[in-house]
Amino acid sequence: MLDPQGRAVHHALDGLGFAGVSDVRVGRLIELEVADDTDPATLTEMCEKLLANTVIENFTIETPGSAEGGR
Amino acid sequence: MLDPQGRAVHHALDGLGFAGVSDVRVGRLIELEVADDTDPATLTEMCEKLLANTVIENFTIETPGSAEGGR
Repeated sequence: MLDPQGRAVHHALDGLGFAGVSDVRVGRLIELEVADDTDPATLTEMCEKLLANTVIENFTIETPGSAEGGR
Repeated sequence: MLDPQGRAVHHALDGLGFAGVSDVRVGRLIELEVADDTDPATLTEMCEKLLANTVIENFTIETPGSAEGGR
């Protein structure tokens, strides 16, 4: 997906003299403390209904220890 | 640190009927594609000079495979 903010940060890093950066992507990180028995489907629903704007954003759900893709 | 955005998201999840969430924290995730020989100190410098507002934000630097704390 397009990431104008990432491009701006990349440009700014170049301007500050930081070389060797080939790509920058900026996103949001949301940490949820949930009950151990929370259904992964519930987490996906939270993302789709509230946490992510799925029109312009992708999201991935990761749980400590294991990593699992959301979309 | 205070996280008013996290509190707002927590409140909104409650309002949508999602139970079992005990804490929410919202932050930024910046993915940098850098040369393999990039000095970790350079990454810390990028965070302090540009990527993080260290007055109100903490940051952590993680590299794929290993994870290492920034501050």
